[in-house]
Amino acid sequence: MTTAITKKVSILRISSDRQERLEDTVVTEFHLTIVLNGEELVTLLCSPQHADYLAIGFLASEGLIQGKEDIKKISVDELRGIVQAETAAGPATASRAVSKHLVTSGCGRSTVLYGKDVTSLAKVSSTTTVSAGEVFTLMKKFQQRCSTFKKTGGVHAAALCDRNGILVFHEDIGRHNAIDKVIGQCVLEDMATQDKLLLTSGRISSEVVLKAVRRSIPLLVSKAPPTSLAATLAKDFNITLIGFVRGQRMNIYANEWRVIDNERPGH
Amino acid sequence: MTTAITKKVSILRISSDRQERLEDTVVTEFHLTIVLNGEELVTLLCSPQHADYLAIGFLASEGLIQGKEDIKKISVDELRGIVQAETAAGPATASRAVSKHLVTSGCGRSTVLYGKDVTSLAKVSSTTTVSAGEVFTLMKKFQQRCSTFKKTGGVHAAALCDRNGILVFHEDIGRHNAIDKVIGQCVLEDMATQDKLLLTSGRISSEVVLKAVRRSIPLLVSKAPPTSLAATLAKDFNITLIGFVRGQRMNIYANEWRVIDNERPGH
Repeated sequence: MTTAITKKVSILRISSDRQERLEDTVVTEFHLTIVLNGEELVTLLCSPQHADYLAIGFLASEGLIQGKEDIKKISVDELRGIVQAETAAGPATASRAVSKHLVTSGCGRSTVLYGKDVTSLAKVSSTTTVSAGEVFTLMKKFQQRCSTFKKTGGVHAAALCDRNGILVFHEDIGRHNAIDKVIGQCVLEDMATQDKLLLTSGRISSEVVLKAVRRSIPLLVSKAPPTSLAATLAKDFNITLIGFVRGQRMNIYANEWRVIDNERPGH
Repeated sequence: MTTAITKKVSILRISSDRQERLEDTVVTEFHLTIVLNGEELVTLLCSPQHADYLAIGFLASEGLIQGKEDIKKISVDELRGIVQAETAAGPATASRAVSKHLVTSGCGRSTVLYGKDVTSLAKVSSTTTVSAGEVFTLMKKFQQRCSTFKKTGGVHAAALCDRNGILVFHEDIGRHNAIDKVIGQCVLEDMATQDKLLLTSGRISSEVVLKAVRRSIPLLVSKAPPTSLAATLAKDFNITLIGFVRGQRMNIYANEWRVIDNERPGH
């Protein structure tokens, strides 16, 4: 049985005119250790749900696996917070990752294999397009799904979408973890990502753009803003980067050509 | 000359009735590598300001230094994004840290030396108290200082305060980095922290509580909520944990005895 995503705690609420002892809901913080080919790779602070998706998504985002075919075995020990993964590549791969630990930006994570690894990544070639109206509608649906956030104010969400709606959705205390859970499910279920949109509730740093690059996701959309480097990388890797989607407004930071206005023909 | 904390980028803004090409301000994302005693320790994605404070604060938060006296030398190469630090302890210390990389929560960072290291940390013994009104006033001042956030929506802030006001304040794209910059400045300037409050704009995960524990900071205050584990750790280490400070309201998650109502005598 998975630990619940939230827990009840007893608090003292102080306001201008009174003090009350209440029960409050906070997000559960869980520690998940990923063991790759017998070697301890990393321990993530995360929400306890979908440890398998998180582990697989993490490995994919780090470039340690490409697809489902690279995973020989995966087992989850929920009680101890351990995921054991066996991949086609040997333990040397894990050592390589461990030795190059680049630590996070904002709402981060670490061990992004940045630097020279970036130059080996391919530009995203997809010609998938979307209308502004579709982006607004998707973000609205996305925010409606963010139920844990509404309850606690303490988690991030991510989703894989097509023009018509949300296909995969996950929440996590870490914005990177939420994205990795989405990516992990796509990998495990052999779901194509190269014609889809990735929505996130969090700010977009270079690490997030690189996650999209690795999975060839052409459109990256957030209600929050990107960093300078995220905008530059999105341009360089041919990703359409949309930020600050709020109501009927959005900012396009890179590759606006994928946003076509099919609701106002001739515009 | 330090790179600016924000950059101008050209965007396309789409709203319900028009499209405009505008100049927008985004936060700069900088990569800072900390080299400890000749060994590469970690690369942080951060804002470019105060690399020395960040590096020292990181080392202190990781338990690699205790105070100013442990730092033999520190040099910053802003152009290449490298901080070289020499400490009293040899390179073995760095290897130990590198080998234990626990990765982030939400808005995170990694390499927190958690697990068995926690048991060696001391409870925070300070009997410092604060009134609810003082907390509300401090948070109001804190939010007024968050100018970069107001401009870009893309950074976190942290501050060391006493009951009367803000003593040290820093902003960074990473909420952990902002806290480490505050801690680093305190270490370098030999500023006492054991009778102070630490304010943060971000959510409070276990890592943030442990940063406060390591510097014996008795009060941890945020406008955002804590995780379940953060609340538990705060209780165990005798830290007063205050979250969701909004206007004239706040939630106390642990050790409420440090919040005394000195504005309403006899209450």
